[in-house]
Amino acid sequence: MLYYWFLRLIHLDYLISMQAVIICAGKGERLTQLTRGKPKPLIPLLGIPLIIRIILNARAAGIDEFIIVVGYAHEAISSYLKEFAHREHLNLKIVYNPDWQSGNGTSVLAAEPYVDDHFLLLMGDHIFDPQVLSQFLRITRQPNTSYILADTDIAKGDKLHEATKLQIGPNNHVLNIGKHLHEFNAIDTGIFILHRSVFSALRKSIEHGDYTLTGGMLQLIQTSQLVAFPIHGFMWCDIDTPTDLRLAETLLLRQLPKPQEDGIISRHLNRPISLQLSRLFARGGVHPNLISLSVLLLSVVAAVMFASTTTWLWMIAGILVQIASILDGCDGEVARLLHKARPFGGWFDTLLDRYGELILCLGITYGYWRVQPYWWVPLLAVLPITGFILASYTRKEYHLRYNKPYPLNVWNYLSKRDLRLFLIFLGSIFFVPYWMMIAIGGLTHLCINMMFITIRWQSHS
Amino acid sequence: MLYYWFLRLIHLDYLISMQAVIICAGKGERLTQLTRGKPKPLIPLLGIPLIIRIILNARAAGIDEFIIVVGYAHEAISSYLKEFAHREHLNLKIVYNPDWQSGNGTSVLAAEPYVDDHFLLLMGDHIFDPQVLSQFLRITRQPNTSYILADTDIAKGDKLHEATKLQIGPNNHVLNIGKHLHEFNAIDTGIFILHRSVFSALRKSIEHGDYTLTGGMLQLIQTSQLVAFPIHGFMWCDIDTPTDLRLAETLLLRQLPKPQEDGIISRHLNRPISLQLSRLFARGGVHPNLISLSVLLLSVVAAVMFASTTTWLWMIAGILVQIASILDGCDGEVARLLHKARPFGGWFDTLLDRYGELILCLGITYGYWRVQPYWWVPLLAVLPITGFILASYTRKEYHLRYNKPYPLNVWNYLSKRDLRLFLIFLGSIFFVPYWMMIAIGGLTHLCINMMFITIRWQSHS
Repeated sequence: MLYYWFLRLIHLDYLISMQAVIICAGKGERLTQLTRGKPKPLIPLLGIPLIIRIILNARAAGIDEFIIVVGYAHEAISSYLKEFAHREHLNLKIVYNPDWQSGNGTSVLAAEPYVDDHFLLLMGDHIFDPQVLSQFLRITRQPNTSYILADTDIAKGDKLHEATKLQIGPNNHVLNIGKHLHEFNAIDTGIFILHRSVFSALRKSIEHGDYTLTGGMLQLIQTSQLVAFPIHGFMWCDIDTPTDLRLAETLLLRQLPKPQEDGIISRHLNRPISLQLSRLFARGGVHPNLISLSVLLLSVVAAVMFASTTTWLWMIAGILVQIASILDGCDGEVARLLHKARPFGGWFDTLLDRYGELILCLGITYGYWRVQPYWWVPLLAVLPITGFILASYTRKEYHLRYNKPYPLNVWNYLSKRDLRLFLIFLGSIFFVPYWMMIAIGGLTHLCINMMFITIRWQSHS
Repeated sequence: MLYYWFLRLIHLDYLISMQAVIICAGKGERLTQLTRGKPKPLIPLLGIPLIIRIILNARAAGIDEFIIVVGYAHEAISSYLKEFAHREHLNLKIVYNPDWQSGNGTSVLAAEPYVDDHFLLLMGDHIFDPQVLSQFLRITRQPNTSYILADTDIAKGDKLHEATKLQIGPNNHVLNIGKHLHEFNAIDTGIFILHRSVFSALRKSIEHGDYTLTGGMLQLIQTSQLVAFPIHGFMWCDIDTPTDLRLAETLLLRQLPKPQEDGIISRHLNRPISLQLSRLFARGGVHPNLISLSVLLLSVVAAVMFASTTTWLWMIAGILVQIASILDGCDGEVARLLHKARPFGGWFDTLLDRYGELILCLGITYGYWRVQPYWWVPLLAVLPITGFILASYTRKEYHLRYNKPYPLNVWNYLSKRDLRLFLIFLGSIFFVPYWMMIAIGGLTHLCINMMFITIRWQSHS
């Protein structure tokens, strides 16, 4: 426990002090066919320009001071970044490197007047998982030592021939770096924590005619000042071609599902579809709250159809319910893709879901009551109307009391929204939406009771 | 922020390392009329023996190692404590002081072989607020220095003449201690953090013929080794007489209400009554979950009465509803009084409350429908049935998303359980429970919407 707080302390220390230098000075010619003259850092990736995505990712890992080195098309990039930094209250400095064409080592040198002893270096065209970056930021930094995040998963395939390779020796010291190494055991991810000693190394390399960052790293290696931080199975991607851009989209989408929260239908049916929809929504910059509202609207339309006595309308309503269930995954996905996930959005969406289900239950009940006008029709409807809300309520209350989510046991799965909406869809296809709804309502109340009994039983055994 | 983690760190360090010595060797003659021969440490205070209350309070402040010094009636106390320590998996050592009659200084000396450099000293008959103790445990401990928790609220009244007084000088150094000081600015609470140097001070005092702890403190004062930790408005109580015991009960009860959670009716009507009931329940050792179940049972009985068409039964049912509302405060209060507050109990109680309200709504609706058998009677009932659950749901979800409780604004107050049960009680008295319930149901849905609008508006302004 004490050790955990120590880690927190060290970690926060880093969060407070680390600056990030981001190099986006190159031309990125291989992407020009897609850009129509737009500079590469401003090309949108799922609705957000590449450079902004990298800034937001770094911020998510705890960085709050940015130094952006620009070169090619620096006016366009600078004006865009200035406007963004102002809007987001970001501590961001833009440095122009007039020598950008001679090599990326000169762009790192351009940041020299502005950085502390250690600083984070990122490439303007490498996207990555913020979680791994925040792990990297936690390493103990030695004076006169630089660190490189090294991906040991060297079977990455088709792009290997153009990747910068690393040979890592004992104690994680880097022994060699280059594109054409014969012996290597890791790949350079383009993510570094550099000590200021890198600047003299770069100057020495330039004296020898090598203007690249790799040249500077080779100088550091000669004095054993470059240490690797090896990782495996980490999401990152270097974007050079239109193919890379699509690959990056897919990698970002793959990060989205939360298997620890999803129900069975959600995981196997809804997510695969909602992820593709989210890709389109994110590209178009659709606001997640708009998606939440559309889900509610679909529920209302379905409820109106259920309220009719025309049974084939029930079928269409059932299909709408399943579409709403799929769309319901998109708001959270798009919010995370667009870095717009906020507590309000989640709160708003959750309550809209409950109201949507309530309206649906009322529609189905009214429709059936018009056919069978008995007193027990509205009475039985109390089971689903209250059960659907209470199942979710029981889980939230557990989360608040125990400070962790309710375990994913069978009673949890059986009382989840994705399953009940799917069953209502099935019930509607077979013209029995009311009875299906009542059955799930009864099952849900059973689940609620079993959720209690399971926990009680566990704490006694 | 960093400073906060530092504090946490220091705090946890203390939690892990501090031992508590508890002196309960005295005879406590002034309580014998109440005890019928039972030794004072075993006298129950709101259902829990005095010494156990002190152990549990210290544990709540983070102490996990106990050394109990016993004297008078040591067999009875030891066997009780051993059984308790075994049941609660407590690290507890019992030390017998054969010289207990000569003075409480000898009881402190008896603990010498078992303690570290610094240890906490508590009196077996002083109850206190664990929160202040955990503050006290956080002070920076200097070598060869002992600390005393000093209450600067010297206007405490009737018991002042028998209290041990303190004269505190510059830098919180204690200048004098004793029962009969003319000049004093604080009172000894009987809570100390002592350094091992206290043992030689006690021996020196005993050589001079003073066998009391105060004698040892006077020796420490001569070498400036006693520092006060002054506090004000802190709940503590020295229990010597039956009057003290009742005062301690009142003080403990006064700690229970949570003004940041209570609604208006709860604060001004329900709490004053429920606290007196909780006093009785705690004395009798009634399990809090039993109280939660009784509240549900009362709701069911009230619902059955509401379901009749006899309007005077509605009136009685309304009174039962208000009684249930008052009793509903007791489960939490008794749980805290008996140190039995567990996540499961809170979770269980919350869901029983929701089911109770649901059954109540169904009873009221059915009763009214028997008089007025129209289709809109069950339809309107959807407003309260769903509103009552959703209002609570909205608050819980807010708490989970924002990591803090929903602010206590007017919409929060208007949608709380205490108010709606009170209004249903009023409605029943005037024979209109159904319409009152519908009105509150509508109001509650309005409140839910306003709770969202308020937060949205705040985040934009």
